[in-house]
Amino acid sequence: MAYPQTSFQNTTFSSPSLIDRKRETVYSKTLLYQLKVLKETGRYDAFKLKWHKTYDDPPDVWPVPNHLFWDSDVAKWIEGACYFLSWKKNEEIDAAIKELTEMIRSAQKDDGYLNIHFTLVDPKGRFSNLRDLHELYNAGHLIEAALAHHQYYKNDLLLEPILKYVDLLCKTFGPGADQKHGYPGHPEIELALLRLYNVTKDPKHFDLAKYFLDERGNPTGQDGRHYYEVEAAARGEGEHETPAYYPKKNAYSYQQAHEPIVEQDTIEGHSVRAMYLLTAAADLARLKNQKPEAPLRTAISRLWSNMVEKKMYLTGGIGAIKQFEGFGIDYFLPQGTDEGGCYAETCAAIGVMMMAERLLQLDLDGHYSDILELCFYNAVLTGMSTSGEQFTYVNQLASTDTDLSKRAEWFTCACCPPNVTRLLGYIGGYLWTSKVDEDKKSAEFDVHMYSAATTTVSIGESKVELEQKSNWPWESDIDFKLKCPEAVTATIRLHIPGWAKEWKISPKLDQVELKKGYLTIPSDWLKKNPCFRISFPMKTRIISPHPYTNQNVVALARGPIIYCVEDADNPWVQDHFKTLHFDPASTISERLVTDDELGEPYVALTAHNAASFLAIDGTASPDLPVACITTKEQPSVAELNFIPYYLRSNRGGKGHMRVGLRKKI
Amino acid sequence: MAYPQTSFQNTTFSSPSLIDRKRETVYSKTLLYQLKVLKETGRYDAFKLKWHKTYDDPPDVWPVPNHLFWDSDVAKWIEGACYFLSWKKNEEIDAAIKELTEMIRSAQKDDGYLNIHFTLVDPKGRFSNLRDLHELYNAGHLIEAALAHHQYYKNDLLLEPILKYVDLLCKTFGPGADQKHGYPGHPEIELALLRLYNVTKDPKHFDLAKYFLDERGNPTGQDGRHYYEVEAAARGEGEHETPAYYPKKNAYSYQQAHEPIVEQDTIEGHSVRAMYLLTAAADLARLKNQKPEAPLRTAISRLWSNMVEKKMYLTGGIGAIKQFEGFGIDYFLPQGTDEGGCYAETCAAIGVMMMAERLLQLDLDGHYSDILELCFYNAVLTGMSTSGEQFTYVNQLASTDTDLSKRAEWFTCACCPPNVTRLLGYIGGYLWTSKVDEDKKSAEFDVHMYSAATTTVSIGESKVELEQKSNWPWESDIDFKLKCPEAVTATIRLHIPGWAKEWKISPKLDQVELKKGYLTIPSDWLKKNPCFRISFPMKTRIISPHPYTNQNVVALARGPIIYCVEDADNPWVQDHFKTLHFDPASTISERLVTDDELGEPYVALTAHNAASFLAIDGTASPDLPVACITTKEQPSVAELNFIPYYLRSNRGGKGHMRVGLRKKI
Repeated sequence: MAYPQTSFQNTTFSSPSLIDRKRETVYSKTLLYQLKVLKETGRYDAFKLKWHKTYDDPPDVWPVPNHLFWDSDVAKWIEGACYFLSWKKNEEIDAAIKELTEMIRSAQKDDGYLNIHFTLVDPKGRFSNLRDLHELYNAGHLIEAALAHHQYYKNDLLLEPILKYVDLLCKTFGPGADQKHGYPGHPEIELALLRLYNVTKDPKHFDLAKYFLDERGNPTGQDGRHYYEVEAAARGEGEHETPAYYPKKNAYSYQQAHEPIVEQDTIEGHSVRAMYLLTAAADLARLKNQKPEAPLRTAISRLWSNMVEKKMYLTGGIGAIKQFEGFGIDYFLPQGTDEGGCYAETCAAIGVMMMAERLLQLDLDGHYSDILELCFYNAVLTGMSTSGEQFTYVNQLASTDTDLSKRAEWFTCACCPPNVTRLLGYIGGYLWTSKVDEDKKSAEFDVHMYSAATTTVSIGESKVELEQKSNWPWESDIDFKLKCPEAVTATIRLHIPGWAKEWKISPKLDQVELKKGYLTIPSDWLKKNPCFRISFPMKTRIISPHPYTNQNVVALARGPIIYCVEDADNPWVQDHFKTLHFDPASTISERLVTDDELGEPYVALTAHNAASFLAIDGTASPDLPVACITTKEQPSVAELNFIPYYLRSNRGGKGHMRVGLRKKI
Repeated sequence: MAYPQTSFQNTTFSSPSLIDRKRETVYSKTLLYQLKVLKETGRYDAFKLKWHKTYDDPPDVWPVPNHLFWDSDVAKWIEGACYFLSWKKNEEIDAAIKELTEMIRSAQKDDGYLNIHFTLVDPKGRFSNLRDLHELYNAGHLIEAALAHHQYYKNDLLLEPILKYVDLLCKTFGPGADQKHGYPGHPEIELALLRLYNVTKDPKHFDLAKYFLDERGNPTGQDGRHYYEVEAAARGEGEHETPAYYPKKNAYSYQQAHEPIVEQDTIEGHSVRAMYLLTAAADLARLKNQKPEAPLRTAISRLWSNMVEKKMYLTGGIGAIKQFEGFGIDYFLPQGTDEGGCYAETCAAIGVMMMAERLLQLDLDGHYSDILELCFYNAVLTGMSTSGEQFTYVNQLASTDTDLSKRAEWFTCACCPPNVTRLLGYIGGYLWTSKVDEDKKSAEFDVHMYSAATTTVSIGESKVELEQKSNWPWESDIDFKLKCPEAVTATIRLHIPGWAKEWKISPKLDQVELKKGYLTIPSDWLKKNPCFRISFPMKTRIISPHPYTNQNVVALARGPIIYCVEDADNPWVQDHFKTLHFDPASTISERLVTDDELGEPYVALTAHNAASFLAIDGTASPDLPVACITTKEQPSVAELNFIPYYLRSNRGGKGHMRVGLRKKI
């Protein structure tokens, strides 16, 4: 089964579509903007191994040096850039990749070791703190960059040094008596090694990924103790020294290393780490052809369900707790800082998409594609401005005075911006999956998301081409056109979104075969009807988080898009919409906005006479008589204007924004 | 102005009344039970300074040794026991106090030092860790014990060594170049020193209290740095070593030492510490006759308001966060562990009462007496079983499977049980305040709480006696009888509870003078009407926390009593009443329960046809269509039975309990 990082090459997006616009923005703006920032901040030249003044700074977050992720920032940019170059050439980007490749090659030690910090700043510290210091995380991103580079340039200039580095890692880590029984504090290399194995077929790449996954959380893995404990003692760490992101001593759940994956009951800790780890775990289960009842697969399902049902925001965002950038307890999903949390990091939502995609390979279930799409259009896309040059890291569902709904140009820990870049580079790989059987001369297309795009697969000498045309996610109709040689049989399975209460296909199917959210379009029908249309009537929906979240709120959604209110078109707001009460029975009108303010069309929503405002008649005290909690009208707010959450914070303003609105009393 | 720990001696409770019953329980059961536990656990003999096996145990909560509070456990018991002996003699208790006094005297070092841990276990550690190690906290409780001992026994056997110890402290701490510029991590000694000053009139006792209060939170107090920083460096503490209760490095807000008291905007950190500190601060402001606009007084008001309006539970409990036993952010008041918190420690509510009482001395405002009474009848009394031999430390408003509504026989950190004991010993001092003017031959009585009791004050040779008779808090009428010589003028001010929507006095007053919640009964009217009745019709009220708590719940209250539901008389419950929805419009009946099950009468409430249950029609996921969240009836639950929160967990059962019930959809 192909990975989306490869299969995206079969897809061509056509214009106009939301995805095509975003890709155009990244290609023409974001890639070059990020390259400029890489240069300005010292990251670009860092593999030259010259001292940079940043290396002298004390860590913002002890014990993690501020520049520790620089390897990965560069690697993710290379990876994303290679994906985009395969769409459109660009000399400046091409030259930069080539120069970076040379610098990376030149930074490699003779034994294969390759890391900026541990070569230049702390050469004695190599592999002494896997728990905190992102060495293997950086290695994972270098592997992914090398794979993208190899795929695009069809040479080994980057892959060669990376393979040499991986050789060193294979020697260093493993079950042998002379090997370290460790595993990365920040997973990433596991999924990268499995993808590498797919290219190299070298079993030691598979084995190292498997070792990292199996060994993780072993309470007696190193000398009868937890690896991180032994490692900390070896470097002389005090028994009560606590990294800034640990809420308590030895909180290995931060790294999902508190117990072996197969024993974990609930999803815990740092949410990006959890997603990268489980993406690899799902891929391992797939590669080993595990049955659904295998312990690893049941653990993955259990953790996924716990996350989606009890620890995910309306937007698809995950992670409520700022301190450890991760999951709170079940149903702890405050919308903003003033309620006790909300992190919903952009990278974490990208991680959910990665995990959902692997799960779709294991089990074609529309539930996974629903979450994939929810995250993409809301929790991920909200991370980049329409200009392509501003970003968010944290994506709260409600602003506060201390955390306005505003964007930044960059971050010290800059994981999110290049992660959005590379995701949009290979997004075509998430749109659909195709399988080809050369012997049977058959092709199967599983369509997970809708857009305007074409995918092409080859069977022997023939080509099969499937085109979808739509103005998704704004309009309801998707027109499909299949070009398939007579000798080939093609089957299509179409995702019926979970939110779609009804759907219509025309011409009509002879028979409806709908299984786990996918509608099968059989080959015989397709022979007669190579062009067909499916429609999912888009109506504004009123949604709500689970009552156990204690969020007595509702939000608006339409298709896969979650909406918010912000001050740009509700300028009266002074309090982040905190006292606003929304009447779910109000009339809501839709409007396709095509003016140029945001440079892209979208559907805006307006709720009429929907707003009232919290009024408390009496002094505040611990026990308010319930009758004194009322609402008052504010005649000037006859219209409440909603915009897609992903488009927030693009039109200036004060940074007041909210997704979930208190329900009318 | 007398302290309640002294003025309580003017009050005699009469029977029957809730307070009298509780005091009888403590006298006949709790004091002897706690004495037995003190002996069994090693605390009783600890001042003999022989090794106890507990001293070998590693700390449950680093860096605090488990036995660190033993001095204070003994001291608080002595203090409480002395209060009760002044009511009724008891040979066993008397003998124990005398023996403990001898042991404490014998434990004193030649230089006056007096502390179990730092004399026996860690003699080199004396005054090396004020931040964590409770040395001055223990000293404060020893002072309070000595004051109670001196008052009852009228000898100096305990006060003498304590004064010697205080001399050492006065030499050790202060602004001098050769003195330590430190202050206790756990306040307590400040309020004790001010009370000591009231007895000794020794200005150095006042000055040391004032120094501790003024110096607290000084960022440059010791050698240009924060005292705790200097102290930690001096004992070689690693820069990243973090006590288990610190959510992050140097979280001095835990100790309210993050900035000077006068600069603090919101109430933060460990809630017991905050209350003990601000009780002393309020007393200092009173002793210095500060005006309301003085910086310390405005700080105290600001912090009190922040607490009562934004950080207090319906029961008067404070402290949402378990890790640091303290305040969350504004409006973060989950009812139980499954919602993210709820601590509401018994000692903290006792601390609120202490602070409220001092504030009443500064400013006679019924708001303070409302909170005083709310805490007493709910957050404090819930801490002891009707048997007097079981206790709670944490008082959540909703149970969960991990934190059942159950009592314990004792705690490793046993601050709460003897704190309830001593509080009930001097509760008479909270009931009312009297002022006498010998020259004008006038007496004034401010009545803060109602019960069945008599207070007597002397004016020269005469006595003025005020009696109140009622079955408070169950019945509405309080009958007052004043016995006052013709030559003396007496004035009474009666607290009108904030919850009382109406009140009636008979005979009628000629003129109503009601100011900040206190009704003045003038002396001329009293001459004609020495017997009168005031009534506060008690009706069940439906109350609610502030909407910003995101607690969409209601609770029942009647008079000062807050109610809960528990499984003992709602045996069908399986889920801690978590799915229960309550209809605020339902009929609620009241019933005076006089059977013997709990050994005391109380008013039970029953809501008829009030219950429905959360039903979610659809699979759980992050965005539920709002229409799928409904409720279903359960015909078998026609009656929902409520019991006062303070009486919970006395009748066996499963430990399922809840105060705030979800509002009917």
